Amino acid sequence: MADWKEVPGGVTAPKGYKAAGITAGLKPSGLPDLALIVSDVEAIAAGVFTTSVVRAACVDFCRDKLREKHTARAILCNAGQANAATGEQGFIDAIESAQALSQALGIQSDLVLLASTGVIGQRIKMDILKAGLPKLVSELSDTGSDAAAKAICTTDTVTKAIALETTIDGRPVRIGGMCKGAGMIHPNMATMLGFVTCDAAVSPHLWQEMLGRAVDKSFNQITVDGDTSTNDTVLALANGESRTPAITEMGAEAEKLEAMLTEVCIHLAKAIARDGEGATCLVEVQVSGASDDADARKIARTIAGSSLVKSAIFGRDPNWGRIAAAAGRAGVAFNQEELQIKLGDFLMMEHGQPQPFDRTAANAYLNQAAQGAYLKEDTVLISLSVGSGAGAGTAWGCDLSYDYVKINAEYTT
Amino acid sequence: MADWKEVPGGVTAPKGYKAAGITAGLKPSGLPDLALIVSDVEAIAAGVFTTSVVRAACVDFCRDKLREKHTARAILCNAGQANAATGEQGFIDAIESAQALSQALGIQSDLVLLASTGVIGQRIKMDILKAGLPKLVSELSDTGSDAAAKAICTTDTVTKAIALETTIDGRPVRIGGMCKGAGMIHPNMATMLGFVTCDAAVSPHLWQEMLGRAVDKSFNQITVDGDTSTNDTVLALANGESRTPAITEMGAEAEKLEAMLTEVCIHLAKAIARDGEGATCLVEVQVSGASDDADARKIARTIAGSSLVKSAIFGRDPNWGRIAAAAGRAGVAFNQEELQIKLGDFLMMEHGQPQPFDRTAANAYLNQAAQGAYLKEDTVLISLSVGSGAGAGTAWGCDLSYDYVKINAEYTT
Repeated sequence: MADWKEVPGGVTAPKGYKAAGITAGLKPSGLPDLALIVSDVEAIAAGVFTTSVVRAACVDFCRDKLREKHTARAILCNAGQANAATGEQGFIDAIESAQALSQALGIQSDLVLLASTGVIGQRIKMDILKAGLPKLVSELSDTGSDAAAKAICTTDTVTKAIALETTIDGRPVRIGGMCKGAGMIHPNMATMLGFVTCDAAVSPHLWQEMLGRAVDKSFNQITVDGDTSTNDTVLALANGESRTPAITEMGAEAEKLEAMLTEVCIHLAKAIARDGEGATCLVEVQVSGASDDADARKIARTIAGSSLVKSAIFGRDPNWGRIAAAAGRAGVAFNQEELQIKLGDFLMMEHGQPQPFDRTAANAYLNQAAQGAYLKEDTVLISLSVGSGAGAGTAWGCDLSYDYVKINAEYTT
Repeated sequence: MADWKEVPGGVTAPKGYKAAGITAGLKPSGLPDLALIVSDVEAIAAGVFTTSVVRAACVDFCRDKLREKHTARAILCNAGQANAATGEQGFIDAIESAQALSQALGIQSDLVLLASTGVIGQRIKMDILKAGLPKLVSELSDTGSDAAAKAICTTDTVTKAIALETTIDGRPVRIGGMCKGAGMIHPNMATMLGFVTCDAAVSPHLWQEMLGRAVDKSFNQITVDGDTSTNDTVLALANGESRTPAITEMGAEAEKLEAMLTEVCIHLAKAIARDGEGATCLVEVQVSGASDDADARKIARTIAGSSLVKSAIFGRDPNWGRIAAAAGRAGVAFNQEELQIKLGDFLMMEHGQPQPFDRTAANAYLNQAAQGAYLKEDTVLISLSVGSGAGAGTAWGCDLSYDYVKINAEYTT
């Protein structure tokens, strides 16, 4: 079983991190909109970014930076303006933001990472951002994770954070994380930002590899293609302040750390799916029997992202035919005569044949998940077996409700 | 310009075709649910089918049939039960349907093609279907296109049909078509059926090739992957009753015929997009400047299928940032510094830079399209240039409204 425990503190749970979040005035709503995470010492930094051709300035800024230098001390995130599709001026704004923060913190400007979320095509309101930096820096504290997690939100209805602790070489090691994201009809269409802090000592190359694999099993499993929004970014710092031995290659300790990192990312990814715009429940899709894990994950994502499946779940309708149809169009070859589909404990299809099931009870199962939102029982579980292969994978999504349309029809107007 | 004119009569406009549509009792609603198209003589038959792994029995039936024999006389379509994910029994039902119809018509059973639409996982109610066949056959007439077009509908709010006429070798040649389909949030998630009749004489191989290309430019451009539903089918008959010279290879006459076939398919595809579940307007996305047509079509499809773009249009929100974001994640490489985006006549982005535009006027443009639904002005035009390549392509979709969710949350319950 899991070799870790949950601890409070979010991104400031690991040793040597401070965070803050304030209302600088970037959002018209007056809600918190500027967040900062700082490591006391230079930390190994890794990043995973959107693969979209149309990218925010902060994405290009961070990619360029991490290509040259694998360490960082600060992550600055603004909400309100995405600074995407803003051309050259957007990139100049990003550089200026990093410089302004480095001066306020008294650190080198190449130790600053950036993230933005908000309306695409709008530049960051630079005067407001710069005017807010002194206050932001002055509020940095080792209990600042909640404030920072609030300040990165846009359409999110809840903040999302977690921290886990394990032991390495007999000493505690922690990983904390926070994220934002909620636009989940087609899960990959809203900005997803994730920030991870860790006090283990890891080599840059290994830390980047671990983050890549963890993101594939978590954040990329709440997206359809894993490559969508202009701003999607996951940044992870590892500052070594746990004083545990440096992990420089894969082995038992590295696997332990990667498993915990993956768990942090999965927790955050599920929180995003659960907070899908207008969602009433979390949908977990487990696929087994595929040729390999990648195929299984692809089928799981296709089902979790199907608008027809999502609409049916919102309608509390055990419409397994839509699940079968989504599996069939995932672009993965399987024999439909071997398809098994379960909704919760209800067997709906076996060997490609529809099975009799108690429709009233299945309907009650879906209702119960919706009523349990934000409780432990809020999850609708869909499980499929597509053959006898060893490949397995899980994806997460949410149902599709009237409120999704309302939220997205009225976002900028 | 187009070398054809519109004529009345739908699928019975070309010479030598009859059609009928009746209420057999397959749908609980009591609406028409059984349609038949018959050619007086054996016609060359072509088909394009879903590429989903989970396929309806009728799809396998038609694919097998057309592999062995390139002619047909009848297309039988039932609405109410999709006969998909129904296992071996579903296939037996398909064979039995074809046999029963061939007896009622007095033709060979291998001249019958089949299509089904309705709830996935439900077998066709065979007793009702068979009991309805005598009445269906007795109602066949050369004015039966409307009745047939009604009987293939499910969630469609309007019937969809067209017929065009051109001349080949001085004689009139006609192509008629009808289709059903409406589930368009992600355009490819509902069954799309299309039936085309033609009185030209074309060789089987050429007719199949022409249909494949026409479908790529039309029905596949209202879908995201072109491969989705369990039942998607386009069947096309060419019976030679125009008595025009046989077209056996590409050349001027063949190109003329293919252009008209493509126009029929585009008309029908647009009618499906326009009738998107809960839609208030048609969205046409034109992309130019790509490396090739396939790339341009892919970008156009991604934009037309973006739930965020569709929600914004429903909200009458000229949110071009979402258009840029959708273009960027289409999986096609381009330089964002060369991106140009227009909404109607409003230039919103040029050389990757946001442009000032009259937001009130752009909003009015969107409102006008919605108010013009089913009139000529019902179309919201989005046009993009992504570079200096020669590739161009068009896709169609619709906006995403509250009613989409309502329709799809309540379909089987």
